[in-house]
Amino acid sequence: MIFYFLGTGAGVPSRMRNVSSLALVMPEYGGQTWLFDCGEATQHQILVSPVKLSKVSHIWITHLHGDHLYGLPGVLGSRSFQGAETPLTVYGPPGLAEFIEISLKTSRTFLRYPLKVEEIADGSRFTEGAFSILVKKLDHGIPSFGFRLMEKEQPGRLDAKRLKEIGVPPGPVYKELKEGKTVLLPDGRHIDGKEFLSPPVPGRIIAILGDTRVTKTAFELAGNADILIHESTYRAGQEELAFSFFHSTCTQAAEVAKQSGAKRLILNHISSRFQEEDCAELLEEARSVFPQTLLAHDGFEYELPVREVKQKQT
Amino acid sequence: MIFYFLGTGAGVPSRMRNVSSLALVMPEYGGQTWLFDCGEATQHQILVSPVKLSKVSHIWITHLHGDHLYGLPGVLGSRSFQGAETPLTVYGPPGLAEFIEISLKTSRTFLRYPLKVEEIADGSRFTEGAFSILVKKLDHGIPSFGFRLMEKEQPGRLDAKRLKEIGVPPGPVYKELKEGKTVLLPDGRHIDGKEFLSPPVPGRIIAILGDTRVTKTAFELAGNADILIHESTYRAGQEELAFSFFHSTCTQAAEVAKQSGAKRLILNHISSRFQEEDCAELLEEARSVFPQTLLAHDGFEYELPVREVKQKQT
Repeated sequence: MIFYFLGTGAGVPSRMRNVSSLALVMPEYGGQTWLFDCGEATQHQILVSPVKLSKVSHIWITHLHGDHLYGLPGVLGSRSFQGAETPLTVYGPPGLAEFIEISLKTSRTFLRYPLKVEEIADGSRFTEGAFSILVKKLDHGIPSFGFRLMEKEQPGRLDAKRLKEIGVPPGPVYKELKEGKTVLLPDGRHIDGKEFLSPPVPGRIIAILGDTRVTKTAFELAGNADILIHESTYRAGQEELAFSFFHSTCTQAAEVAKQSGAKRLILNHISSRFQEEDCAELLEEARSVFPQTLLAHDGFEYELPVREVKQKQT
Repeated sequence: MIFYFLGTGAGVPSRMRNVSSLALVMPEYGGQTWLFDCGEATQHQILVSPVKLSKVSHIWITHLHGDHLYGLPGVLGSRSFQGAETPLTVYGPPGLAEFIEISLKTSRTFLRYPLKVEEIADGSRFTEGAFSILVKKLDHGIPSFGFRLMEKEQPGRLDAKRLKEIGVPPGPVYKELKEGKTVLLPDGRHIDGKEFLSPPVPGRIIAILGDTRVTKTAFELAGNADILIHESTYRAGQEELAFSFFHSTCTQAAEVAKQSGAKRLILNHISSRFQEEDCAELLEEARSVFPQTLLAHDGFEYELPVREVKQKQT
């Protein structure tokens, strides 16, 4: 899985950073691509990235502020214009469906593909592709949500070589062995599939949070996550400002990562008031709390490693 | 008056051309700035142009296709975010007001400045700043409009030097002379203001057309215009395609300019299928019909000269 940070700014676009959008591209799942937030000009950022609009199957909107939303009508229309016919599902807070409906109606945009809009609420749970997803409400003045994506465990591989060595030829029986069942062979032998399977690969946990103050639910979403992607609109020492405007500082984000046992933190949603050298300082501030921190910029890519395989219980 | 072409593409953004927007900046009128169309990422294009969002007082939307509209919510919001408090008026086809209302409501955007939305119809006439504006419907499948901007005649200048020479000192009397009135001086002389005024500067005519097939109203809007800005989605020979998709070819645009007596044509709304060398050919094709043609690209600037002063009638 590769994260492409399409827009990493806060509030309004600047020359350095576009408004929010993040793509999650999954080569291990046929290249399926999900977008998180869709600020204005997300389709423009996609044009200069490896992301393919036609591969986008799900879009998750954390909250309805314009810098997370206004690129959605263009993405929907251009995906159709490019000829995509596969379904697309958009998840987001109440109000999203009306905005999409009016935008498409006003511009007389007719989509070639089936579009489903699902409104989310605190505690919503969904199953999509390889993930089960938990949605929790954060603290941002308007309803803003975070997503905890839990990848399903991948079953172990069947050791076909060893099976052939002991005289079990490939056939329908392999399917049952792969599922860990015990089968009876024509020669009277019982074979236990579990003995020929490598250990399962545990699923990864991804936490992607919308704009928020420090809040209890952030820790819940990030618990034991392989990666936490958290806003960082302010820097250390600006906690009062962050509180006033319903945002977080870089060190508050780092505290969430640290206390929730996350393995990696990526700071996102960086105010345009921070120049390059300020960003280096923000990163240092966050690392003083949680060393496994990175700071995103537009075009930043991060490949999420698979979890280490659990030791086989024998 | 300077035209800044912010987005000169057709339908969807490409690496070369953004979707439609054109700024008209008027240094002679205090830097007042008008936008024509507002495709997605217009605010991004403004960021890298000399156009100041705070100076934008009027936005004219030719039609509601997404590539002319979807940048509007971002422009409205960012203008407020930047602190502008001066009024803004948006003109456009029916449906515009609802789109703006839902976009701002959904994103909880509260504007610091007064916003007025005026819906236009075939034959609408408005007076704004130095212009009277005529709106006519074109032929584009959905309602699409063209604007004919007629600048008011600028009155001649009073020759204060000559007045002083004949013993008329500056004072309230100059105001009346400036208006071309005849005044009675304390010494009994009658002075005719018209004799001390330079000839008035005639107003310019600007025709800016939305997407359209060739249609009678285009000629009406462009009649005797100083400048015609016309779409050119297709090239010479593609008249059937242009007709099918409610667009024009470059030579059709040139015919409008020629037959309506326009002084200058700028081709706009260029399909991304045309590479740089194709664009040079499009321009040549149009020039074979109407030599005073230019072809816009993103970042293209054109300064409109003032009309030559009429000879004084003596």
